[in-house]
Amino acid sequence: MSKLISQDTIVAIATPQGQGAIGVIRLSGDQTFNILKEIAPSKNWHELASHTIHLAHIKREGILLDEALFALFKNPRSYTGEDVAEISCHGSPFILQQVVQLILEKGARLAKAGEFTQRAFLRGRMDLAQAEAVADLIASETEASHRIAMNQMRGGFSNEIKELRVQLINFASLIELELDFSEEDVEFANRDQLRALINSIRLTIEQLIKSFDLGHVIKNGVPTVIVGKPNAGKSTLLNKLLHEEKAIVSEIPGTTRDLIEDEMTLDGIAFRFIDTAGLRETVDKVEAIGVQRTRDKMKQASLIIYLFDVTTTKEKELIADLEELKGLDTPYLVVGNKADTSEKYAEKFNNFNGILFISAKQELGLEELKNRLLNMVNYEKLGSNQTLVTNARHYECLVNTRTALIGASKGMDEQISGDLLAQDIRQALFHLGSITGEVSADDLLGNIFSKFCIGK
Amino acid sequence: MSKLISQDTIVAIATPQGQGAIGVIRLSGDQTFNILKEIAPSKNWHELASHTIHLAHIKREGILLDEALFALFKNPRSYTGEDVAEISCHGSPFILQQVVQLILEKGARLAKAGEFTQRAFLRGRMDLAQAEAVADLIASETEASHRIAMNQMRGGFSNEIKELRVQLINFASLIELELDFSEEDVEFANRDQLRALINSIRLTIEQLIKSFDLGHVIKNGVPTVIVGKPNAGKSTLLNKLLHEEKAIVSEIPGTTRDLIEDEMTLDGIAFRFIDTAGLRETVDKVEAIGVQRTRDKMKQASLIIYLFDVTTTKEKELIADLEELKGLDTPYLVVGNKADTSEKYAEKFNNFNGILFISAKQELGLEELKNRLLNMVNYEKLGSNQTLVTNARHYECLVNTRTALIGASKGMDEQISGDLLAQDIRQALFHLGSITGEVSADDLLGNIFSKFCIGK
Repeated sequence: MSKLISQDTIVAIATPQGQGAIGVIRLSGDQTFNILKEIAPSKNWHELASHTIHLAHIKREGILLDEALFALFKNPRSYTGEDVAEISCHGSPFILQQVVQLILEKGARLAKAGEFTQRAFLRGRMDLAQAEAVADLIASETEASHRIAMNQMRGGFSNEIKELRVQLINFASLIELELDFSEEDVEFANRDQLRALINSIRLTIEQLIKSFDLGHVIKNGVPTVIVGKPNAGKSTLLNKLLHEEKAIVSEIPGTTRDLIEDEMTLDGIAFRFIDTAGLRETVDKVEAIGVQRTRDKMKQASLIIYLFDVTTTKEKELIADLEELKGLDTPYLVVGNKADTSEKYAEKFNNFNGILFISAKQELGLEELKNRLLNMVNYEKLGSNQTLVTNARHYECLVNTRTALIGASKGMDEQISGDLLAQDIRQALFHLGSITGEVSADDLLGNIFSKFCIGK
Repeated sequence: MSKLISQDTIVAIATPQGQGAIGVIRLSGDQTFNILKEIAPSKNWHELASHTIHLAHIKREGILLDEALFALFKNPRSYTGEDVAEISCHGSPFILQQVVQLILEKGARLAKAGEFTQRAFLRGRMDLAQAEAVADLIASETEASHRIAMNQMRGGFSNEIKELRVQLINFASLIELELDFSEEDVEFANRDQLRALINSIRLTIEQLIKSFDLGHVIKNGVPTVIVGKPNAGKSTLLNKLLHEEKAIVSEIPGTTRDLIEDEMTLDGIAFRFIDTAGLRETVDKVEAIGVQRTRDKMKQASLIIYLFDVTTTKEKELIADLEELKGLDTPYLVVGNKADTSEKYAEKFNNFNGILFISAKQELGLEELKNRLLNMVNYEKLGSNQTLVTNARHYECLVNTRTALIGASKGMDEQISGDLLAQDIRQALFHLGSITGEVSADDLLGNIFSKFCIGK
C-alpha cells in the first residue's frame, strides 16, 4: 500500500466558501515548512515546536497578502501523520485564492477531495471505516446520525468488524493447517465447534445487515408519505409538526442549515415528509397514472401516515382505504383528524383498532403521533449499544461476507474438502477486511475519498 | 471609553456558513478558559501556554459532540486583547450549532456582528480606521481594493490622519495660550505662519477628499456603461473582455467568488459593465422614457464606452452622438468596432480625434482599449504612495474637517477673536479624530461594527 503514499505536498481551502471572519488553508506533506519559509520568511518554521501558533506576514514579491495565524503540526503528530500547517487568513475569498495560488507557485499542488483524510488512512492514522465516518460526521444533520458517525469515527464499528475477522482467521488457520496434513486425513478443527463458530459469526453479520435499514434512514431521514384527501387536513398537520423545529434551528444566526422544507427531527431522527394526493380519490377519477404514482411513493416510503377527516369520512370509505394500505408492504399509521369537532366519531369508528384520533388545528394528540412515528422506526434500538450500519458500501461488504459464510456452512454440511472450505473463508475474510481497509484495491480508495469535501 | 468594555464572554462561528472540512468557533472574554473547562474537562486550560494547540473532546452530558483542536490565546496576546480560544471543529453545521449552544449554556453569549473587532478597538489593539479596514479587507475582491484595505489596516491612513492632528493640536495650543493672556492682547502665534500651516493642512485634506472618488470606485468597482446600437457588437466586446478573467477565477475549486456577471478586473481594478440600449435609437422612436433611462445610467456611470460599427455608421450620426456625449459630465471613450472588415474607415472617420479602432470579434485592439480604460480611472495614482480614502464615513469626516478649517482661515482673514478661532480648530480636531476613533460617540461605534461579519 505504500506506493499509494505520494510524497508531494498538498494544499486546499478547508473552510466553506464565502466571506467570513476566518478562512483556513491547509497544507500537508514534507515540503510544508519549506513552503512556509517561502511565503512567510520572517519565521524559522523548521525550528518551531509542533502544536504552536504564530502570527506572520504572507508576502508575494514584497507585497503583503495577509497577516495570518499559522498553526503547526509536525509529523507524525498531525491529522495526516505528515507535516501539516493550518493558515488562518482573513476570511476573504480573494485573499484565500491569492494565498493558495502563491503556495501552488512554491511547489504544492491542489488537494483532491478527501485527500487529507486519505493520507491519514494510508499512514495508518485511521482505518477505512473510520475515515468514511469523517465525511458522514461532517454531513450529519441530526443528533442520531451525528452519534452514529461519531461512534464509527472513533472506531466502534471497526472494532466489531475486526473482532469478527479475528474469529474467522482462527477458524481459517485451523482449516489451512488441515490442508498441510491433507494426506493424513486428520481434522484439527472439530467440525461441530467450527459450525457453532460460523453460526455465531453469521448471527452478528445478520444483525449488522439488518441494522442497515434503520441506519440508512437515520443517516438520510425517514421518507414518510402523508396520504389523505385534500380536506383531511394534511397541510395543517404538516405545518404544526414542522413549525417547532424550524424556530429552534433559526435561533443561532449563521448556522441555519439548508432545510428540506418538509423535514422534522424527532429525538434526533429526521422524518422527510412527502405529500401525496388522496389514496382513492384518483381511483374515482380513473386517473390510472396518478394512482400509480401515489402507490409508488407509498411503496418507496418507510412510513405512511394515512389521514382522514372523522367528520366527513364514511365507514365503508375507510374500510376500502385500509384494504389498499394492507396491500402495500410499508408500515402505516391511521390517523383520524378533526376529532375535536365531532363527539360521535368514537362510536362511528368503534370497530377499527389502532386509529389515533387527533386535531391538527387544536394541536391535540400530536405528541402521541410523534411517539408512534418514533416507535415505528424502532427507535428503542438506538438507545442500546447496537452498532448501526449506515454506509451502503459496508452493507454490500457484509452481504458478500454472509454469502461466503453461507457457502462455508453449506460446504461443511456437504462435507466438501478443506480446500474448498478454505476458499469460502478467504472470501469472507476479504469482504470483511474491505470494510476497514485491511484489504483494499486502489480504485476502491479513489472512489471513497472522492466523495469528501476538498480540504478534508 | 472603558464603560464600553463589557466583561461578558462572547462566542460566534467565525467561518462561512455551510459544510466544509473545518469550522471554527471563536470565544473571547475572561470566562473563556472556564468555559473550555466545562465543555472539554480533560485539559487544565488555565495552565496551558498561550499560542498552543490541543486536541480535546467536547462533551455535553457525557455525549461526545466532537473531537476538536483548541487554539489558545492568552490576554493580552490575542486579537481582542482578551483571553481567546479558537475551536476547530469538523465542518458540520450541525456540530457547530451544537457546540455553540453548549457554550451559550455555559455562560457565554452570542457575539454581535463585528464585536470581536470592536473589542480589539476598545482595548487599544487597533484604532477605528484600522478596525474598519478589517471589514474592507474581508470584502475586498480585487488586488487594488485589497492593497488599500491592507494598507489602511496596517495603519497607513491612520498615521497620516494622526500627523495632521498633531499639527492642528500644535496650532490649537498656541491659540489657547493666547486666550489665557487675552487681556494683554499678545499674539504668540504668528498669524502668517498659522495661515501657512492651515493652508498646508487643508491641501492634504483636499487631496484625501479628492482621492475618495478613485478610492470608492476601486473598492466598489468602476461602473462602466457600454452604449451603442445593437449591431455595434456590444455583447461580442463584453464577452471578449470578460472571458479571460472568468477562466482564471474558476481555476481553484472552492474559491470562485460570487461573480457579478459582467465584471472584469484590470490590473486589480474592477470594471462593472452596464449594458444599455443605443444612444439615439430611442430618440428616433420618440421613446422618451427609454432615452431618459439611458442618459441617467450614463450620468451615474464613471465611464462610458461608446461603441459604433465602422462599416455602417454614417459620419453625421457619429457627430450627433458625440454631441450627446459631450453634454454629459462623464468621461467617455469612442470605439469604432469591426475595423478589420473595412479598410475605408480610416478615411471616413479622418476628421475625428481620439477614436480607438478595434475588432471585438478578431480581438484586435482590445489591449489598447483596456489601457485606455485604466488611464481613465487615473490608474497611475495607485502606483504612487498616495493614500486613497475608500470609506464614506471617513470622507464625511474629512469634508467636515475641511469646512471647519475654511471657517478658521476665513476667521483669520476677518481677524476674529482667538476665542472663535479656537472653536473652529476644535471642530476640525473633533472630525479628524472621529476617523481614527480618538474621539467617538457610542452610537457611531455600534453603527460601524454592525456592518461586520459575525465572528469577526
